[in-house]
Amino acid sequence: MSIAYLNGRFLPLADAQVSVLDRGFLFADGIYEVAAVIDGKLVDSAAHLARLERSTAAIGIALPLSAKEIEAAQKALIARNGLNEGLVYLQITRGADAMRDFLPSPAIQPTLVMFVADKPFLDAPAVRTGIAIATMPDLRWARRDIKSVGLLAQAMAKRAAADAGCQEAWMVEDGFVTEGASSTAFIVTEEGIITRPYSQAVLAGCTGSALTTLAQESGLSVIRRPFTVDEAIAAREAFITSASTLCQSVVRIDGQMIGDGMPGPVAMRLRALYIDFARATAV
Amino acid sequence: MSIAYLNGRFLPLADAQVSVLDRGFLFADGIYEVAAVIDGKLVDSAAHLARLERSTAAIGIALPLSAKEIEAAQKALIARNGLNEGLVYLQITRGADAMRDFLPSPAIQPTLVMFVADKPFLDAPAVRTGIAIATMPDLRWARRDIKSVGLLAQAMAKRAAADAGCQEAWMVEDGFVTEGASSTAFIVTEEGIITRPYSQAVLAGCTGSALTTLAQESGLSVIRRPFTVDEAIAAREAFITSASTLCQSVVRIDGQMIGDGMPGPVAMRLRALYIDFARATAV
Repeated sequence: MSIAYLNGRFLPLADAQVSVLDRGFLFADGIYEVAAVIDGKLVDSAAHLARLERSTAAIGIALPLSAKEIEAAQKALIARNGLNEGLVYLQITRGADAMRDFLPSPAIQPTLVMFVADKPFLDAPAVRTGIAIATMPDLRWARRDIKSVGLLAQAMAKRAAADAGCQEAWMVEDGFVTEGASSTAFIVTEEGIITRPYSQAVLAGCTGSALTTLAQESGLSVIRRPFTVDEAIAAREAFITSASTLCQSVVRIDGQMIGDGMPGPVAMRLRALYIDFARATAV
Repeated sequence: MSIAYLNGRFLPLADAQVSVLDRGFLFADGIYEVAAVIDGKLVDSAAHLARLERSTAAIGIALPLSAKEIEAAQKALIARNGLNEGLVYLQITRGADAMRDFLPSPAIQPTLVMFVADKPFLDAPAVRTGIAIATMPDLRWARRDIKSVGLLAQAMAKRAAADAGCQEAWMVEDGFVTEGASSTAFIVTEEGIITRPYSQAVLAGCTGSALTTLAQESGLSVIRRPFTVDEAIAAREAFITSASTLCQSVVRIDGQMIGDGMPGPVAMRLRALYIDFARATAV
């Protein structure tokens, strides 16, 4: 049975409940993070906790625990679940008032919940086959740099992608790919590795950020600029990054084959580099 | 003690809880409605239930009860709470799976929750004084016609408005007012009553829709077109509509006085017409 963490208590996930007045439930007034676990350790934890602090500060939620205390709770949760490989999900909301109002009361206390997913992603079949992408308009709000739980547009995009036989959606705005529904988008051309610069239009991906640093350190060129769907289809390779896929090759976009239709050498090399980095730095 | 409704059960609101895996909590994957209660009866119920059906259909959530059954549950909730004047809040989410995934399992069962707020809005002090509006960029997603619980942008707008000493925010996009953070926006000029046409850019307001019909039936001219903040500041009157304010005069926008700074005759007449309509048609 999976064990969750809720406001300082460890309890069975099936028993972890929040009030219907929780502002996470009523207003999507909350922030989340997903961190990978490899060999029973947290991957790139400092980056995830720093982004959690940025997101919560952006919407004015005070963290009930320090980053160090949150990490300690995550480690305790991993231990209690005996988790070797998978994910730790964390969500913090503004909490529950006595009644629903757009303006929270000053006394409101945040809700902090965490749970794990046992997911053997290192050896996922998609690593060898690559995945297919469907592109669609980006319907999301203007502050995608804030990792909020307001994920309905992303869930709709994932649904549309799945209905098209694809494993991820790339969202397009003003002619350019912004990012995946739950991942960062990359292409590889003769220019180098291309990915969108950080702005309010995209989330600053922890995995993607670490990966671009690793790429540059190994002598690969990384160009931060927006790219179009046509550029992606014409690219040598395409791939996504996220905590749950690490670095995953894309072999089809809107039914068009990318390169030779198999995971490409740059993405495979970066994946290996990232896994080495993850193992070496996990806490 | 307030009584809530949760998935077929009546229980104290303080005990009404949902799983942390509920997709309303994790993904803002849910829809809500707020209906006014006057004289212990539901106001404009058919319009709210029709919009609930449109919103849930738009994101593919099947209602667990028919509209008639939902209305019956709302009436039972009003009776159990002895509510005379206030609001009934209703939220339906896609429900909770055994684990978090953007794609819901086919077997997922929706969550339906309702609770009431005792709120004497007919005689609210703001009716006599009017309210102040702060304008700000509209940060919301592209499908505002869907009344989703993804309300973080609206909550941020309400916070910014309150910090500016205002009671509501008007959101502005491409130079035009879209709507209020939780209301529909109207101005009155020599042209007549001006309000934005329905599209994906705004929610089709139940109260505003009924009110424009009442205005036209009483010989007033209603023009459906977007308007700017400058037009609003130069208008004879401005007002908002919503289930919780009915029709509420606006007397300041971004610190600028509208008309003579007091609630105007058109808004006051429309408010009276709406209250008559509400009382005559409540169920």
